[in-house]
Amino acid sequence: MDLLLLSNSSSDAGYLVHAHDAITELAAGRKTACFVPFAGVTRDWDTYETLVSDALSPIGIAVRSLHHAGDADAARRLIGTAELIVVGGGNTFRLLQCLRERGLLAPIAACVRKGGARYIGWSAGANLACPTICTTNDMPVANPGGLDALGLVPFQINPHYFNVVVPGFRGETRDQRLAEFTTLHPETPVLGLPEGNWVRVRDEHLDLGGPHTSRWFLDTDVLDVQPGPLPLPR
Amino acid sequence: MDLLLLSNSSSDAGYLVHAHDAITELAAGRKTACFVPFAGVTRDWDTYETLVSDALSPIGIAVRSLHHAGDADAARRLIGTAELIVVGGGNTFRLLQCLRERGLLAPIAACVRKGGARYIGWSAGANLACPTICTTNDMPVANPGGLDALGLVPFQINPHYFNVVVPGFRGETRDQRLAEFTTLHPETPVLGLPEGNWVRVRDEHLDLGGPHTSRWFLDTDVLDVQPGPLPLPR
Repeated sequence: MDLLLLSNSSSDAGYLVHAHDAITELAAGRKTACFVPFAGVTRDWDTYETLVSDALSPIGIAVRSLHHAGDADAARRLIGTAELIVVGGGNTFRLLQCLRERGLLAPIAACVRKGGARYIGWSAGANLACPTICTTNDMPVANPGGLDALGLVPFQINPHYFNVVVPGFRGETRDQRLAEFTTLHPETPVLGLPEGNWVRVRDEHLDLGGPHTSRWFLDTDVLDVQPGPLPLPR
Repeated sequence: MDLLLLSNSSSDAGYLVHAHDAITELAAGRKTACFVPFAGVTRDWDTYETLVSDALSPIGIAVRSLHHAGDADAARRLIGTAELIVVGGGNTFRLLQCLRERGLLAPIAACVRKGGARYIGWSAGANLACPTICTTNDMPVANPGGLDALGLVPFQINPHYFNVVVPGFRGETRDQRLAEFTTLHPETPVLGLPEGNWVRVRDEHLDLGGPHTSRWFLDTDVLDVQPGPLPLPR
C-alpha cells in the first residue's frame, strides 16, 4: 500500500510544484491518474480537472477525472483499473458525501489496500485517507452521511496545521479544536501537518516530508517531529 | 417567540459582560435559567455551569444545568418548565450529538416556539437555533447524527465572523467557506456575526445588536448591514 498525503496543493512556485518530486517518487513510472474532483464546490469539476492535469503533465502524468464516468458502475470500473488515484482538496464534507452517495468509498479503499492503485491526496484528500474526517478544518456545508472515511491509515491528519491566534478572535484556536478531538477520542493520534509538508506511507512505514516540524496530538500531550521516519506514537 | 443569538461569550470586560443589557432585556424579569452545557468538551459541565452561573447572577438570573437531570425524561421536564433556555458555546457537533441522543431537540424547539421559554445562545448555541449547523466554524469531533438543528429562525448564522487572511495559510478563508455554503444552498441566507454582535428575534422581527457591521451572504452576493432593524434579505 502506497500513499502520499499532502497538507496542501498551492505553493509560491505554483500549483503542486512543491510536491513534484514526492509525486514522481510515488508514481514510480505510472503515467495515468484517476482524479477525484468532488471536494470542489465553488470550483467546477471540469475546471478542477484542467488545473490538476496542467500541474501533473510536466512530470509525465495524464489525468482523467472521475466525474466523466456516466454512472456509479462506470466510476467503479475506472477506480478498479486505475494506476494512481488522486484526490483533490476543497470541502471534505462534500467530497465524502459525493463518494458515499456513489458507493465509491469501499472500491477506492480496496483498490489501494491491494496495491492496484497508489493514492495521492491533499487537504480534503488527505483527510479522506484517515479513519474519519473528524479533524478537517472545513465547514460542514454538505451532509456526508457519517464521518467515517477510507481508514487507510490508523491516525488522523489535520492539514494546513498552524496555531496562529488571530487578534480579536474569541473562538477556539486550532490547538484547542484538536484537544477537543483527543478528549473525545484519546486512542487516535492526530498529525498536525503544516503547509508544505506531507506523509509518505509504505504499508506500515511512515515518512514525514517537507520543510517543517510537524506535531502529533495525543491523548493529553503533544509531540513535535522532524522530517524523516515517522513512527506512530506509543 | 423570543431569542437572543450572540456571536460570542467572552469579552475584555469579562464573560458575557458585553451582553448583560441584552440578556436583561430578553429575560424581562425571569429569574431562572435552564443551562445547556453540552457544547463543552475540554471544559467539564460542572465547571461550565459555574462559569455561566457566575456570569448571570449579577443580573439576577439563577442557573441550573441540564446535565444534572437524572435521565432524558427528567431533562424534558426541566425544559418544559424553563423560563429561559441558555445554550452555551463550545463544539457545535458535540452539542447537537448530546441533544439528539437524549431526544431533546424537539422539546426545546416546541417550548421556545410556544413562548414558554425564551432562548439565549452564543456561538454553538446560536448555530443550534438555525435550520442546520452547516455554518459552524467548529471541528467535527463528534458525529451529530445529521446536521439539522432547531430551525427556530429561517436563516443561518456564522458566529465569530471575520475574513482575516492568515499569512502563509493556504486553506479556505471564511468568506470562501461561506461561499461554498451558498453555492450548495442558494435559498438560505447566512448572517456573518462579528465578535460582540448579536441578533434579537421577536417572532418574525429581527434586530441586529452590538457595535459592528454584520454581513449577509446570499446566493451570489453579500450585503453589509448596520445595527438596528434587520429585515431578512429578499
